[in-house]
Amino acid sequence: MTAPDADGRLALDLDRAHVFHSWSAQGALSPLVVAGASGCEVHLADGRTLLDFSSQLVNTNIGHQHPRVTAAIAEQAGRLATIAPQHAVLPRGRAAEAVLRHAPAGFSKVFFTNGGADANENALRMARVVTGRDKVLSTYRSYHGNTGAAVVATGDWRRIPNEYARGHVHAFGPYAYRSEFWSTSVEQEGERALHHLERVIVSEGAASIAAILLETVPGTAGVLVPPPGYLAGVRALADRYGILLVLDEVMAGFGRTGTWFALDQHDVVPDLITFAKGVNSGYVPAGGVLISDAVAAHFEDRVFPGGLTYSGHPLAMAAVVATIEAMEDEKIVENAARIGTDVLAPGLAALADAHPSVGEVRGTGVFWALELVTDPETREPVGAAAMGALKAELLGLGLLPFVQDNRIHVVPPCTVTDAEVATALAAYDRALTTLDASL
Amino acid sequence: MTAPDADGRLALDLDRAHVFHSWSAQGALSPLVVAGASGCEVHLADGRTLLDFSSQLVNTNIGHQHPRVTAAIAEQAGRLATIAPQHAVLPRGRAAEAVLRHAPAGFSKVFFTNGGADANENALRMARVVTGRDKVLSTYRSYHGNTGAAVVATGDWRRIPNEYARGHVHAFGPYAYRSEFWSTSVEQEGERALHHLERVIVSEGAASIAAILLETVPGTAGVLVPPPGYLAGVRALADRYGILLVLDEVMAGFGRTGTWFALDQHDVVPDLITFAKGVNSGYVPAGGVLISDAVAAHFEDRVFPGGLTYSGHPLAMAAVVATIEAMEDEKIVENAARIGTDVLAPGLAALADAHPSVGEVRGTGVFWALELVTDPETREPVGAAAMGALKAELLGLGLLPFVQDNRIHVVPPCTVTDAEVATALAAYDRALTTLDASL
Repeated sequence: MTAPDADGRLALDLDRAHVFHSWSAQGALSPLVVAGASGCEVHLADGRTLLDFSSQLVNTNIGHQHPRVTAAIAEQAGRLATIAPQHAVLPRGRAAEAVLRHAPAGFSKVFFTNGGADANENALRMARVVTGRDKVLSTYRSYHGNTGAAVVATGDWRRIPNEYARGHVHAFGPYAYRSEFWSTSVEQEGERALHHLERVIVSEGAASIAAILLETVPGTAGVLVPPPGYLAGVRALADRYGILLVLDEVMAGFGRTGTWFALDQHDVVPDLITFAKGVNSGYVPAGGVLISDAVAAHFEDRVFPGGLTYSGHPLAMAAVVATIEAMEDEKIVENAARIGTDVLAPGLAALADAHPSVGEVRGTGVFWALELVTDPETREPVGAAAMGALKAELLGLGLLPFVQDNRIHVVPPCTVTDAEVATALAAYDRALTTLDASL
Repeated sequence: MTAPDADGRLALDLDRAHVFHSWSAQGALSPLVVAGASGCEVHLADGRTLLDFSSQLVNTNIGHQHPRVTAAIAEQAGRLATIAPQHAVLPRGRAAEAVLRHAPAGFSKVFFTNGGADANENALRMARVVTGRDKVLSTYRSYHGNTGAAVVATGDWRRIPNEYARGHVHAFGPYAYRSEFWSTSVEQEGERALHHLERVIVSEGAASIAAILLETVPGTAGVLVPPPGYLAGVRALADRYGILLVLDEVMAGFGRTGTWFALDQHDVVPDLITFAKGVNSGYVPAGGVLISDAVAAHFEDRVFPGGLTYSGHPLAMAAVVATIEAMEDEKIVENAARIGTDVLAPGLAALADAHPSVGEVRGTGVFWALELVTDPETREPVGAAAMGALKAELLGLGLLPFVQDNRIHVVPPCTVTDAEVATALAAYDRALTTLDASL
């Protein structure tokens, strides 16, 4: 590490003077200063290079600065940067087609948005209009975005100061390691979570519920891969009660779980699928809603009451097309699956064996969590101070980690190599050794 | 006009098959197919060129494909397309600094968002947290975006099917041509609108109101330039009752009115300013909130409960910096002011003199409305069929117009030339002649 260069000093000075940060008190921030990035590496202004096992906010699925995507952006910028959504342009149609190539059968329309929050806003809008019902049922362990309805559909603490949307109710989802249902196996957890969900549906009044909104794999809440059969069971409940099922694949989609969508692993076809992040790795802000044919048919001759200036933005769309084509051609989703099965699964299991602080390892593809506890019996979460020290040690070891509550989320780009995983596992091993000693 | 080329046919086919459109029934759409654009011109796939007097959705203030902005996007794409908002990067700090160069005194922080809707969401969040109050007061003639709170703060029809946010109340704003207050002059309209606003504040319970949210110049509602003294009066009411004033400059900001912000013409300094569109002409999706120092101070040691993955997105920020620098260097805002005063004001007044269907002309800079009526005495709005025919004739004359309800919004890029305005005025003149004859 050396002193930051002049650009780095200026970047930090301007940031501290003028940039207001998300989800933070502004006074105490001490951001890393980033000068550049490539693949799984982030280059800091002080000369350090970090191995990016955060994928930023779990969005750079294709890695940093993939040349096909950056070239497509530059090319589209030179051709046509922006056009209003009411006009037709080729990159928008091609992006819709590219996304739909990986959707389940029965989907042929895409509504594009600026990100994941407004994707969820518009999916909930569609569900309410189509059903003529009011309520949205989601889970306490979830995050769906920061705008009016999305943040109240959210279950975690970020909802609490923002409860200005009505018609939202929450239930508990399956989470075998910290069961809300006194279950003693994953199978029982899935069954009891379905029972609980149906009890909430009936108690709220099934005919009042427009949508069940779930992250296919709840992400920020802890990479909570659902038990086998759970999502198929939710689909059956939705059908029984005339409720639309919305699966939020904003974080889980586009290769993160080792398949194009996480739902591909769960024998479930929802009515609406929301996406953002991985669809173009966030190179240009974009999100959207995949609309099943039955929902789309409703709006053939009825006005859809939603829209936005940058829906299907040409620059974002060009990045979507290039990202999906590169992921197809370079078998990047297949790489995420192989890394998950062959490298991360055994490597993280070995960490769990070696470190009593690792209470549970769970995940799939390049989407994993290490749940850290002070005691394997009580499962007491490791506290904020120790997690802060762990994060600092990992940074010092050259790893950019994703630390959330008492967990490390192991979420590198889908392009990560065996060697990079080995480097990261060694850093985790060393930092967990320090953590174990401190407990 | 010739048949569209192969790319154009493909663009249209893919659009109709796969792209779900904003604010529309999907079945009957017949979009223009755009192949490219430059300056004030849009090039269609069938070989036609249209003179863009819509600025798309009133966002391409700098015109299409400004070479400094497209080059900056391409350059940033090659350097660093995306990075998470918690890290500091130079283009984000520089963009904040560039926006703040044109803000009123007393503003030194910017929170960046993806567009105007989430800018308003986050401004309302700040106002509610800072005041500890619940309600948001906005006007019936307004549009603030399509997400949960923004769409319910909206006054127009788009709110009605979306009323899932709580704590919103609406009042009438000044609109002398169609007064809600039986006023007989612009001055009286301003005074009575303030009286009405205060009566609503008091009747709602002043201590329950967190924010008054107003478009500085309500845009989609009809370019309703407020009477002199009105906004200063709103500021005084806000101060009297401890309410924060949020001015929405999403459409009016960045040169549209002939000044950097519309508020520059109204002797008013709000607590929060929201922006999007013109800040980078929509070349990359971006918006944000300008935060007064008093509001920013509140969050120095308290967590701000909002955020988003693409806040301060590097590609969007590079476009912001390049757009603002180009607008400064090329005196583009000055051009908008001069065009407004010297060319559009007299030209549109001449249209009003010549055509009985023009009930009122109002505006400033490159932000004008022609209000079309079937009878100057009754002020009966021209109906949808006649407006559709008018729009079709304008398109046939080579003009891409912005038609809203019974109005033509005259909203070219700020870079528009005298000659282009002359061409547009001739087209309006011809189409209005047809309209007059039909009435």
